[in-house]
Amino acid sequence: MIDGYSVLPVRGIGEVRPGDDLARLITDAAPWLRDGDILVVTSKIVSKAEGQLADVPVAGPEREAAREDLLRSETARVVATRGHTRIVQTHHGFVMASAGIDNSNVDRSQLVLLPKDPDRSAADLRATLRERHGLDVAVIVSDTMGRPWRNGLTDVALGSAGIAPLRDHRGETDPHGNDLQITQIAVVDELAAAAELVKGKIDQVPVAVIRGLIQTTEEAPGVVPTLVRTAEQDLFSLGTEEAKEQGRRERSGDPRP
Amino acid sequence: MIDGYSVLPVRGIGEVRPGDDLARLITDAAPWLRDGDILVVTSKIVSKAEGQLADVPVAGPEREAAREDLLRSETARVVATRGHTRIVQTHHGFVMASAGIDNSNVDRSQLVLLPKDPDRSAADLRATLRERHGLDVAVIVSDTMGRPWRNGLTDVALGSAGIAPLRDHRGETDPHGNDLQITQIAVVDELAAAAELVKGKIDQVPVAVIRGLIQTTEEAPGVVPTLVRTAEQDLFSLGTEEAKEQGRRERSGDPRP
Repeated sequence: MIDGYSVLPVRGIGEVRPGDDLARLITDAAPWLRDGDILVVTSKIVSKAEGQLADVPVAGPEREAAREDLLRSETARVVATRGHTRIVQTHHGFVMASAGIDNSNVDRSQLVLLPKDPDRSAADLRATLRERHGLDVAVIVSDTMGRPWRNGLTDVALGSAGIAPLRDHRGETDPHGNDLQITQIAVVDELAAAAELVKGKIDQVPVAVIRGLIQTTEEAPGVVPTLVRTAEQDLFSLGTEEAKEQGRRERSGDPRP
Repeated sequence: MIDGYSVLPVRGIGEVRPGDDLARLITDAAPWLRDGDILVVTSKIVSKAEGQLADVPVAGPEREAAREDLLRSETARVVATRGHTRIVQTHHGFVMASAGIDNSNVDRSQLVLLPKDPDRSAADLRATLRERHGLDVAVIVSDTMGRPWRNGLTDVALGSAGIAPLRDHRGETDPHGNDLQITQIAVVDELAAAAELVKGKIDQVPVAVIRGLIQTTEEAPGVVPTLVRTAEQDLFSLGTEEAKEQGRRERSGDPRP
């Protein structure tokens, strides 16, 4: 019966600051980590350790203006806008509200940006844990994202190392002889979701450990090259209103992009 | 350290047929079920037990035509089309490829439709387990869905009973005094994802049990009234090409819808 898996919170990590050694903070808080575990680390503490913070005024229109500037610099293209909501594609390729810029769990005078290269962050943490602590673990850097068509957010993976982001059932057949042609499961996103359930927003549990799932630790491509779909491949590369507006402009011969 | 949660596969359920008693099949296969567990049941076996199956020719253009007819009758509106891919909104409100009609893990002469009312299916199974087996468990009916912007599918909840679909952090503040204004977490979707990791596609493990997460079993609204966003509320109610085309038609005065 005990052949499922466990999801364990890592408590006591405390406030993370620029330059902090995440591998040490995590192994101090979770001396019970062991080979084969999958470590799911909230992107916010990765960003903080890497100094991906921006100083902003604590209130007023100056704060809003500074936030706007940051959003612009983190944005590769705007996907959809409604009221104060701005959904954009980041330079990494993620489609997220406000480019993932966050003001929660940080001092009022700062905003947290996404890690510059979350796959690299995951690989670095994995390498440090292996080299300095003798641990062979997979690492996922996760964040909370919205999605179309359904209310509520879920956690997904921004970066990973030591685990294949997709499990591929294409080419297999079921017991009835039917092909399973198109089923690729986004395993790292499901792991990020499973981890969120013990992390919570206020509880200051920024890391969870997933134990007991068989996983390859051979070198696998990260999240960005595997899971991020380009605008050209996507059927929803623009919001409905934005796309309608583009159609109207095309028809009226308006050359604006 | 053991204050996380576990995800346990339920093995040995075998082939499910119309009229089968799911509560009995599950309790026979998992006599270790206990109060407070969350049962995540693949929608396919719910559909099979409820007889949501359609007879179709085993091959050829007749099969395709029958499938087209089914897709039409399961579709409330077409959202996006590319090649053979048809993303539609079902009468329940779910936006899914092929309206969730599935040909895997079923005889070649049949196709599986979604349960007619997955929240009702979950509530019925929960009630039967309580009344006949004395078990107080939450139930989630799950299915595999794609999403825009990211490759790979994840499991999400189609229906639920005995658990609140959303965890709401709005109105709370973090330790720095920042409001957490907009964070509603789609807990049942994360639970469905966590369960998928032990279920797999070929392994015939259509049920998983999540144990150790504190959860309310008071009556909570289901997935459809809580998580399904209406087209009017959604920024991505149409595919980009479909919306552009609509914009072009509007501009040229073409009255077609």
